[in-house]
Amino acid sequence: MPFPVAQRLVAEFVGTAFLLAIIVGSGVMAETLAGGNEAVALLANTLAIAAGLMVLILVFGPVSGAHFNPAVTFAAVLRGGTSRSIAAAYVAVQMAGAVAGVMLAHAMFDLELLQTGMKARAGLPMALSEGVATFALLMTILFCSRHNPRATPYAVGLVIAAGLWFTPSTAFANPAVAIARTFTDTFTSIRLVDAPMFIL
Amino acid sequence: MPFPVAQRLVAEFVGTAFLLAIIVGSGVMAETLAGGNEAVALLANTLAIAAGLMVLILVFGPVSGAHFNPAVTFAAVLRGGTSRSIAAAYVAVQMAGAVAGVMLAHAMFDLELLQTGMKARAGLPMALSEGVATFALLMTILFCSRHNPRATPYAVGLVIAAGLWFTPSTAFANPAVAIARTFTDTFTSIRLVDAPMFIL
Amino acid sequence: MPFPVAQRLVAEFVGTAFLLAIIVGSGVMAETLAGGNEAVALLANTLAIAAGLMVLILVFGPVSGAHFNPAVTFAAVLRGGTSRSIAAAYVAVQMAGAVAGVMLAHAMFDLELLQTGMKARAGLPMALSEGVATFALLMTILFCSRHNPRATPYAVGLVIAAGLWFTPSTAFANPAVAIARTFTDTFTSIRLVDAPMFIL
Amino acid sequence: MPFPVAQRLVAEFVGTAFLLAIIVGSGVMAETLAGGNEAVALLANTLAIAAGLMVLILVFGPVSGAHFNPAVTFAAVLRGGTSRSIAAAYVAVQMAGAVAGVMLAHAMFDLELLQTGMKARAGLPMALSEGVATFALLMTILFCSRHNPRATPYAVGLVIAAGLWFTPSTAFANPAVAIARTFTDTFTSIRLVDAPMFIL
Repeated sequence: MPFPVAQRLVAEFVGTAFLLAIIVGSGVMAETLAGGNEAVALLANTLAIAAGLMVLILVFGPVSGAHFNPAVTFAAVLRGGTSRSIAAAYVAVQMAGAVAGVMLAHAMFDLELLQTGMKARAGLPMALSEGVATFALLMTILFCSRHNPRATPYAVGLVIAAGLWFTPSTAFANPAVAIARTFTDTFTSIRLVDAPMFIL
Repeated sequence: MPFPVAQRLVAEFVGTAFLLAIIVGSGVMAETLAGGNEAVALLANTLAIAAGLMVLILVFGPVSGAHFNPAVTFAAVLRGGTSRSIAAAYVAVQMAGAVAGVMLAHAMFDLELLQTGMKARAGLPMALSEGVATFALLMTILFCSRHNPRATPYAVGLVIAAGLWFTPSTAFANPAVAIARTFTDTFTSIRLVDAPMFIL
Repeated sequence: MPFPVAQRLVAEFVGTAFLLAIIVGSGVMAETLAGGNEAVALLANTLAIAAGLMVLILVFGPVSGAHFNPAVTFAAVLRGGTSRSIAAAYVAVQMAGAVAGVMLAHAMFDLELLQTGMKARAGLPMALSEGVATFALLMTILFCSRHNPRATPYAVGLVIAAGLWFTPSTAFANPAVAIARTFTDTFTSIRLVDAPMFIL
Repeated sequence: MPFPVAQRLVAEFVGTAFLLAIIVGSGVMAETLAGGNEAVALLANTLAIAAGLMVLILVFGPVSGAHFNPAVTFAAVLRGGTSRSIAAAYVAVQMAGAVAGVMLAHAMFDLELLQTGMKARAGLPMALSEGVATFALLMTILFCSRHNPRATPYAVGLVIAAGLWFTPSTAFANPAVAIARTFTDTFTSIRLVDAPMFIL
């Protein structure tokens, strides 16, 4: 990859921040407008997340690989494409970007910048669900980037869209997202005590 | 196709299992959240199935052809691209994968692993509807793979999305799916006594 | 175009029949499930029509050009790509296919095969709306097929999707569709006395 | 770009007019049909705008660059691709086209041709939100047109779709759109006194 490390880290920071701003912001908007119909709210949330994620991967993929996710960075290390020191820096800016994105969404919607997530999402089925979602995401990235590289941005958006509906945990599959979502108490929040399970 | 048979069978098993987990899982989620509005539930179900199917074909198409469907495998035999013994093995793992996928969805949503489908879906119009849906699916695969091969994953997802709405049988067009759906009593279930007609 | 005339006419007949079966069938399904929320019904109708049209153009485009519409065939004659006798045959099978598709949808949903459309859709704004929709469709086909040929199937599906929402006449822009819709009294019907205006 | 200036200006005028006709027209239709559920109305509005924008960029991109937006034209000047005199002409026809498009939508829906927007959209969070939306749009255009040029029409449609949900200002990010929307008092309107902030 010909881009210098500093630019790659900026891309990971900005991309992960936008991803979280989209997840949290569209969740607030959807819940506000949906008048209690949670399926309509989740449909709108899904649409915004899938569309936004496709764009972010099209935009930042050529720069940093568009990981936006410690699990993806970890998989890249295992496959040998990324050194450990780069990976550690990636994960750090992903975490910082994710929290910044949550704060940006709160600022845009005129809410408290940092909140405490209260939605209980726990139990064995939830753990199984996160395992399935993470497997699906890594499988999609691994196979697509080898056999259908130009379709990868769309495939990742689509697998997250499907995952938001076929898993009860609404497919975080992303430790940075899981942690950042403990800082919001909106539609897409998660309780701090439940976060460690999602991260594993 | 350069992939060894064992890998192709694993791809058919995993792909069909994911397909059913998405069909059944998103059906449970959609019905739970939709508060009685069945059109909203079917919209969400359609979105998840179409998105998931596109991803599964992008991921496993280069490995096994991404049949996930005995009818597609049967058509491949007729066109001369696949031997009968391979086809028999494909159909067996598709059936096993489909049932495994239903069980996975039930496990993630903390439901009984195996259930008995109770939704009556019978009659002559239903049979006509399945015939139309199967014709549309095979026509799409046959023509696209010849003239627009790179568009095939999207076309198959889109034809299933349309089929879920323009046929009253919600377009199974897939014997493995029909059988597996007799093992669930959720939004997407089907009665065992009605299954033979769908399979034919 | 290397395909023999007979095959091209079969493609126009089957394609137009499927298009109408999708328009009418998904309209029936959507209205039945939507419980009175017409926006949800039209969303589902839009999704099915756009998805189905993309597939039909991907499937039959390389065979017949995938007109499915006398206005498109007429434009092809003006541009010099199609002889008048071929065009006359195209229009005839499009009309026949459209009526056959309406009957197929009625048969699948166990309704009377031929009905009389009762939805009033008339007036000057409606005429303006059809003019705008037809202009948008022909502009899309003309420009895309010259500058972005591989994107044309998607562009046509997308312009119809937008047209179903931004014009009050829900963008027929297709005389064969307008005539065929006088034979149904479901969600997507149109009154016979209003049809001539849509056709012009 | 080989197209003569007159053709490019026509493309900008027609494209911007269609964009506003789609924004306002689908907003009217969606609000009329949605029966008070604003999330369903915004979902339909989003679908129509994203689909229409993708088509307009596919159609007019090769002719004029498909700016339809003074901010995009301004960015093109900064990057050195467009002269100042051409840019001034672009902005003028974009403004005229936007107002014409609003009037066209009103005419099709049999409403007063020019109205006064009454929806209050003001405050610091709103200003932040417009800044974020404009940054996202320009970032998408800038990076995609360099690294993924063929995906740009889709990426722009998708980023606007996401922006309609994750920003409380529903992502105008376009001074021509902001001004034109002060001339409508429908679902997508904006108060004249709030327009200057959106434009900045």
